[in-house]
Amino acid sequence: MKFTAPQKLKDIASLIDAEITGNENIVITGINEINLVENGDIVFVDHPKYYDKALFSKASVIIINQKTECPAGKALLICSDPFSAFNRLVLQFSSRSFSTKAISDTASIGKNSRIMPGSFLGDHVKIGDNCVIHSHVVIYDHCMVGNNVIIHSGTVIGADAFYYKKKPGGFEKLSSAGRVVIEDEVEIGANCTIDRGVTGETVIGRGTKIDNLVQIGHDTKVGKNCLFAAQVGISGACVIEDDVILWGQVGVPSKIRIGKGAVLLGQSAPAKNLQGGKTYLGSPCEEAKTMFRQLAALRKLPDMTKKL
Amino acid sequence: MKFTAPQKLKDIASLIDAEITGNENIVITGINEINLVENGDIVFVDHPKYYDKALFSKASVIIINQKTECPAGKALLICSDPFSAFNRLVLQFSSRSFSTKAISDTASIGKNSRIMPGSFLGDHVKIGDNCVIHSHVVIYDHCMVGNNVIIHSGTVIGADAFYYKKKPGGFEKLSSAGRVVIEDEVEIGANCTIDRGVTGETVIGRGTKIDNLVQIGHDTKVGKNCLFAAQVGISGACVIEDDVILWGQVGVPSKIRIGKGAVLLGQSAPAKNLQGGKTYLGSPCEEAKTMFRQLAALRKLPDMTKKL
Amino acid sequence: MKFTAPQKLKDIASLIDAEITGNENIVITGINEINLVENGDIVFVDHPKYYDKALFSKASVIIINQKTECPAGKALLICSDPFSAFNRLVLQFSSRSFSTKAISDTASIGKNSRIMPGSFLGDHVKIGDNCVIHSHVVIYDHCMVGNNVIIHSGTVIGADAFYYKKKPGGFEKLSSAGRVVIEDEVEIGANCTIDRGVTGETVIGRGTKIDNLVQIGHDTKVGKNCLFAAQVGISGACVIEDDVILWGQVGVPSKIRIGKGAVLLGQSAPAKNLQGGKTYLGSPCEEAKTMFRQLAALRKLPDMTKKL
Repeated sequence: MKFTAPQKLKDIASLIDAEITGNENIVITGINEINLVENGDIVFVDHPKYYDKALFSKASVIIINQKTECPAGKALLICSDPFSAFNRLVLQFSSRSFSTKAISDTASIGKNSRIMPGSFLGDHVKIGDNCVIHSHVVIYDHCMVGNNVIIHSGTVIGADAFYYKKKPGGFEKLSSAGRVVIEDEVEIGANCTIDRGVTGETVIGRGTKIDNLVQIGHDTKVGKNCLFAAQVGISGACVIEDDVILWGQVGVPSKIRIGKGAVLLGQSAPAKNLQGGKTYLGSPCEEAKTMFRQLAALRKLPDMTKKL
Repeated sequence: MKFTAPQKLKDIASLIDAEITGNENIVITGINEINLVENGDIVFVDHPKYYDKALFSKASVIIINQKTECPAGKALLICSDPFSAFNRLVLQFSSRSFSTKAISDTASIGKNSRIMPGSFLGDHVKIGDNCVIHSHVVIYDHCMVGNNVIIHSGTVIGADAFYYKKKPGGFEKLSSAGRVVIEDEVEIGANCTIDRGVTGETVIGRGTKIDNLVQIGHDTKVGKNCLFAAQVGISGACVIEDDVILWGQVGVPSKIRIGKGAVLLGQSAPAKNLQGGKTYLGSPCEEAKTMFRQLAALRKLPDMTKKL
Repeated sequence: MKFTAPQKLKDIASLIDAEITGNENIVITGINEINLVENGDIVFVDHPKYYDKALFSKASVIIINQKTECPAGKALLICSDPFSAFNRLVLQFSSRSFSTKAISDTASIGKNSRIMPGSFLGDHVKIGDNCVIHSHVVIYDHCMVGNNVIIHSGTVIGADAFYYKKKPGGFEKLSSAGRVVIEDEVEIGANCTIDRGVTGETVIGRGTKIDNLVQIGHDTKVGKNCLFAAQVGISGACVIEDDVILWGQVGVPSKIRIGKGAVLLGQSAPAKNLQGGKTYLGSPCEEAKTMFRQLAALRKLPDMTKKL
């Protein structure tokens, strides 16, 4: 998320009641979680295991819960609860808004696009040209839909990220200030859910086709011309490269990358990043030919065990 | 389900055309299925395998399809089809109703709660304070939502239990007279489904967070501060204790109990009750460390088979 | 799909710019994909592997991408892209239409049927007698619902088939001109999706009961008195015979036939057609007793491996 105007470090520090070390004159232009961070951004870290990742990321300012050496040219904001502090800043600079009308006055709809009865388009939603938005689609505020897109009934675009931090009194929710971007020529089936990014964008790439009841988590980037069958679930912060095919009920854990042209057979689930151009099977999945050999051996195992 | 006033045994017997044995003067205060039954309740049983469970439950009156000895202080209602008889009583005493307005006049909404356009709130629905009910949420009659609850678009709260009895002419449906209770600080994602209890309550405990496309069956009790990722499915009459984490696409069969703080990894499914405080994997699942050893051995099995 | 009036071969050929060989005077009465084709129909084929299947099917006219010998009494329409040509014809003869009202003027609703607030019934939808259509159900144009049917909130009936052809520039979508037929006494849970046929009908047989979040693909035929638990997914062009029970999260790939009375335990998935009257487990599934033996052997495998 980029700010509408650059911010001063002192103002930010006072908003979250943090102590400054490092370059006090640094210009801050945005705020992002660690996976999306860019120069000029604020990021946060609260576990020593990830300190180095945050300190040496592209972030210009790091909210951190321990005094530590500040890398040259950067600044640290030291406070007891970086997650809550980051959350407060996201909320402060977020432009989220809630329309009281079924189709917001600030929503824009392109030429020849058909919005069927009963859909909800939130504030600042943009729908491109030649789209069909079937009845009872919900598109939350600020989400973007390209040209020649079809979205079937009951699909929900832009609900909040499922992202919580365990605290002594229960879970604290990370506010979602990002959005969803659906590129041109995409088709999305009925009753799907595509969550908005926390600070960035969840993207469905040009030409990708998605069947019914599919879940796509916050900040996930789906490439071009992918094919996802019904009931596929993709967690947050994944990267699905172009031309990937996921068959029915495949599940992808968070932060996984699936290489270009990979195929996952039905009900498979990767436990780690997958190379492109190959076919996978199983949960956790392996290359399909490897898994078929294991399944064949397993079928013979009861008799073999008896002999031994 | 408790009756609004106590009922006489004779009146109940005549409603379902049953023969009475045992204590004819017993006071009946409610009706419940076997898992929820309390003193004063009517219960039913139609298979000899479960006769003792029903006869020696807390029920005061047992609808049964065979003359048998009546435990002291109780009464039996003997008829040929206890399921249908029970069903007729549930229907008779149920207060279910169907609003013709999108937001029923008998629905109540607490302070500072935002109901977004296009939602449906049935008769006698109660929404607490400081809630956000996003557009296109459906809450069936008599369901209760606590304070500080967020429900995302497309979620359906309080649809009927999936509970049928096979009969020669097809399935007979057990009427759902219960409700759903969502406690404070709960967040529920988009396009989830939480069914009402048959005679009791389906409960989502305080502070629990639920991702998109999650199913929770009738009469299931979910504890406090649980975390359910997308596409989790929990059947009817389960007990999920506090602090349980279910990752994506986990499936829980009916009547299973999962102990406090248990973690089920993605796509896992228990075949029996699970102890708390442990991590599980697989379908049927085992402790994750046990399952990882099995998977490692399976990977070597094809080569081992060849050598043997 | 049958045409409203028979068509001449020459007119069809000119619509898709194809060359005619064979019987030029053949009467064409409809158009269907290969799985549903009948006498008088047009079908298409674009891969030599399937030429014989199409040429010797019941089709009277075959759109094909190579000159080949025409079976007696039939006609071929030769063109470079049979898929696109077929698609153009489906679109040309389709009667699909898009209501601008939430309940179309051409929708018909039987006696004593209750349509709750917020539902969408498209053009030419027919609802039988004594039905309950809960709020926020969407039924696309031309779909048929029998008598005594209950459909819970958020369910979408009749969205387009998920059927695409990979082309150099991306996917070409096959237009859906079929419909969904829900027979009498069916109950469908909340947030389900049942897609329409491509040229034929997706059918849910009399007395079948379906739980929440279930997906049923285009052209699938579900028999009578089946029971599908929550989150089951059935792909397109399957045949599920009578009395089949699918437990939660079962996944059925396309074109699979499941025999009468088969039971698939939770999370199972067939890799091929299944015989009726048996119980199956696993992904890919086997008979449950076979799979239980394999799982028991697998549990002993780590120790056995160590000994060897």
